[in-house]
Amino acid sequence: MQLTKKIFAVFIPVTILALIVAFVLVSTHHKYWNHSSYEPPNILFLLADDLGYGDLQSYGHPLQEAGGVERLVDEGMRFTQWYAPAMICTPSRVSTLTGRYSVRSGFLGDGPPVFIPSSPGGIPRNDSTIAETLQKSGYKTGMVGKWHLGTNKFNNTDGFFLPRHYGFDYVGTNMPFTNMETCNPNVYTAEEMGPDCFAYNDATIAQQPVDLTTVTDKMLTEAKDFMTKNRNGKFFLFVSFIQTHVALFCGERHCGKSRRGLYGDNLNEMSDGISNLLDHLESLGLTKKTLVVFTSDNGPKMDNCPHGGDGGPFRGGKGATWEGGLRVPGVIRWPGVIDPGTVSTSVISTMDLYPTFVKLATGFKNQVLSEVDGEPIKEILCNFPEYKKDDKCTRSDPERNLFFYCTGDLFAVRHGDYKLHYKTKQSPMDRVVDDRHCFKPTTEELIRVYSCVEGVTTHEPPLLYNVVEDPRESMPLNISSYQKVVDIIDKLAKQHKMSIENVPEQFLPPNLDLIPCCNPPKCICTDAN
Amino acid sequence: MQLTKKIFAVFIPVTILALIVAFVLVSTHHKYWNHSSYEPPNILFLLADDLGYGDLQSYGHPLQEAGGVERLVDEGMRFTQWYAPAMICTPSRVSTLTGRYSVRSGFLGDGPPVFIPSSPGGIPRNDSTIAETLQKSGYKTGMVGKWHLGTNKFNNTDGFFLPRHYGFDYVGTNMPFTNMETCNPNVYTAEEMGPDCFAYNDATIAQQPVDLTTVTDKMLTEAKDFMTKNRNGKFFLFVSFIQTHVALFCGERHCGKSRRGLYGDNLNEMSDGISNLLDHLESLGLTKKTLVVFTSDNGPKMDNCPHGGDGGPFRGGKGATWEGGLRVPGVIRWPGVIDPGTVSTSVISTMDLYPTFVKLATGFKNQVLSEVDGEPIKEILCNFPEYKKDDKCTRSDPERNLFFYCTGDLFAVRHGDYKLHYKTKQSPMDRVVDDRHCFKPTTEELIRVYSCVEGVTTHEPPLLYNVVEDPRESMPLNISSYQKVVDIIDKLAKQHKMSIENVPEQFLPPNLDLIPCCNPPKCICTDAN
Repeated sequence: MQLTKKIFAVFIPVTILALIVAFVLVSTHHKYWNHSSYEPPNILFLLADDLGYGDLQSYGHPLQEAGGVERLVDEGMRFTQWYAPAMICTPSRVSTLTGRYSVRSGFLGDGPPVFIPSSPGGIPRNDSTIAETLQKSGYKTGMVGKWHLGTNKFNNTDGFFLPRHYGFDYVGTNMPFTNMETCNPNVYTAEEMGPDCFAYNDATIAQQPVDLTTVTDKMLTEAKDFMTKNRNGKFFLFVSFIQTHVALFCGERHCGKSRRGLYGDNLNEMSDGISNLLDHLESLGLTKKTLVVFTSDNGPKMDNCPHGGDGGPFRGGKGATWEGGLRVPGVIRWPGVIDPGTVSTSVISTMDLYPTFVKLATGFKNQVLSEVDGEPIKEILCNFPEYKKDDKCTRSDPERNLFFYCTGDLFAVRHGDYKLHYKTKQSPMDRVVDDRHCFKPTTEELIRVYSCVEGVTTHEPPLLYNVVEDPRESMPLNISSYQKVVDIIDKLAKQHKMSIENVPEQFLPPNLDLIPCCNPPKCICTDAN
Repeated sequence: MQLTKKIFAVFIPVTILALIVAFVLVSTHHKYWNHSSYEPPNILFLLADDLGYGDLQSYGHPLQEAGGVERLVDEGMRFTQWYAPAMICTPSRVSTLTGRYSVRSGFLGDGPPVFIPSSPGGIPRNDSTIAETLQKSGYKTGMVGKWHLGTNKFNNTDGFFLPRHYGFDYVGTNMPFTNMETCNPNVYTAEEMGPDCFAYNDATIAQQPVDLTTVTDKMLTEAKDFMTKNRNGKFFLFVSFIQTHVALFCGERHCGKSRRGLYGDNLNEMSDGISNLLDHLESLGLTKKTLVVFTSDNGPKMDNCPHGGDGGPFRGGKGATWEGGLRVPGVIRWPGVIDPGTVSTSVISTMDLYPTFVKLATGFKNQVLSEVDGEPIKEILCNFPEYKKDDKCTRSDPERNLFFYCTGDLFAVRHGDYKLHYKTKQSPMDRVVDDRHCFKPTTEELIRVYSCVEGVTTHEPPLLYNVVEDPRESMPLNISSYQKVVDIIDKLAKQHKMSIENVPEQFLPPNLDLIPCCNPPKCICTDAN
């Protein structure tokens, strides 16, 4: 009896402790499992609008409240050299969906460098999108939110370029056109807004003008329903937030709550939305089965002055190929695969998501993706032995090359630690007026700010920076000491330009007949469907 | 037997689990202990030199490696509105040690606004320093590293202003004068350096010129010995790093190792030093008994261009009363009192350390410290019931007022969310030359850069910013809409100026006879003592 007691007293606690340790190890480190049981993850892709590198607490903003993104940062990996594919919405977004530079989709021409409601262009129907490719691998695909890749082509109802044509099984509330300052329901009446502020439900105009203060809640409900419905299969969900673009609206729950003011309120609405989606994933038991990615489409809209977002340490913002226009937050969470609270300084482009998602979806079978410009993200893929053996995850990276265009014009190239500027645009914060103060441009000036032709400086010789040692691009290197680097980049740029095939231009002159209107000629409808 | 088994099977695991939970709770949350057993902590105060707000990974630098400060951030509290008391070394450091604005110590006059080897000024002997005050509370006090608060007064050997006269029981390797670019042993020979590069051991010149590449190791050894010797009492140790001021030297272990280049190498030497000190604290079993504070004396030396540090999102750097000159990293670790991984947006000045340390050292008995300008830091003190009951930790803070001087001239005031600039200095990065590129100033220009008289703009009306909504100080508010705020600040400024008593000036014209020299006329000695 005494012996039995002792045996129990020793062995039971030891066994229990061993079980606890084993449980903790297994539950937190399932990357050490045998990957013969590999299952492709769900993919939740969260995209912010005009959010700058320095806008989040986790990226150094001194006053922005922590939120959903910080939860992803704590539980996942934060990237510090993540590039948007372009410095403005439309070309950035087509690259994100196709994994290729926007020039390959014909995002060039004489029209405005972003689509407006009267634009007859859009994403070419024969372009292969990430949604289509994932569909082919058995994923259910869905999207809600900002689109900005075209609306109509022939008339004001054809919806030729709406998301439903690009591989999404489900499309909820979506906004083909980006919101303008005049779409702010905190400031303007429905009549004052005009026809340019609208939201679709799939291919039907749902609200004209859209009520921005309630549209995020709708998007979130739809996104959660989509995840719930597809909880037993594999899904790809693209949640394209309308924050923190102008109009800087705020809904009841957020108005006046951020220390930082209106911009902070607007950002916090998105942050709460992200938390809401993460909570829902957790409630479905899908946290560990889902890869979550968060990034922004381009740098901050600095011509909006203090309410225009923060590029952190970088020079310039949206519309400029300075680092401030291109460098954005980038966060990946996948518990058990990505270690929590980690930081990567790898050079990443949002275009890299396409080949990364495809590798994961196909169980690493799709070895060649020569048609895309993005490269698989090693921080995710190299955790899997199936990928590792084929792609030599251990060798050091070759110098990464990234090309930055303003419509069809190559402005800058990043090559390894260097960045060469052939052309630059004066960015709003570079405008030196009265002691470097920011002044909001007039509408006319605004067109110049985002033009790829006006306000452009050609640099001969080009400006060379080491953006690793000088991320601020504060002092160009002496070209004569770096001629070899310039020669290499010149050659790369030439090769790259030659690789671009002739395709129809999409930035075409506006056609007012294409502007969507739910009930001509009034164009005012409230929850039409 | 069967019942006994069952009892063991249920009760033993439950008991073990309860014990584990209790142990974890107690060891991680000893702030919930009964504070009748309160013991004043050791204090380890780590000060960096010219480190900018944006220079650390934890404060948003995209490429700087994580290090000792990140360990403090993970285990403690990171502050996002921490102000240096002044925008340049000498006045900032006197304020730090006295808890008062530098004008109260007479840090004004026509001489250079920082002490040089030939300066006849220094910290007045009758000023009360934090070291003296802690000594009186039974602390053993020590310091190593940069001093910059005066050397000699009457001749080149009196050492009138050396740290030993200001309440330090132990003074190790110390540098009364800040390092100049010419003190870089990676670049210059001993002969080329001249007499301005020297290090003391207490009051004796130890090296002239100092070997910057090995001096940090010496400082660390001395600091660790001091902690070991005083492990059973209470100690206050001031480790004043020589990084990341010019000269940007690097020692063997760090040269060429940082992605970020030379600045990163230099910073990493400090980071490793901090880790080394934290490891030593841990090995002495003092981690939980020691309050560790890390901050910087002022913003980055941006006239050093890409090698001059990073002010993060802020405008300007060292020498300017723009936020970039004043806002610095500020981190506090005290396991069991401060929750790990937390962020505070409270407005803090380094001057606040004085009254905070005194409260802690006296067991909260010293209720009034009217002679200091700093205010007790609630994030630390309000965790203690003894403090809480007297100081109403629960009421919301009144608007914090901070006054920023350039020698005796009041340049700017922060009041609540607002900052009013009466005068500004053009900061190097504000100098718009050839597309906003940074150009290193010549020595003559450098004097202008840091002068409080030349290159100064007086603003009439003054410039007002909301630095919470517009931390970049990018767009001044329309004064006419904020006249009430301006009136309040004007009144505060007037009251503040009136509170400053007449004391002897310390920024006096240089006297070459005061330059320390270990063996005249050569002034070259290697490890003299």
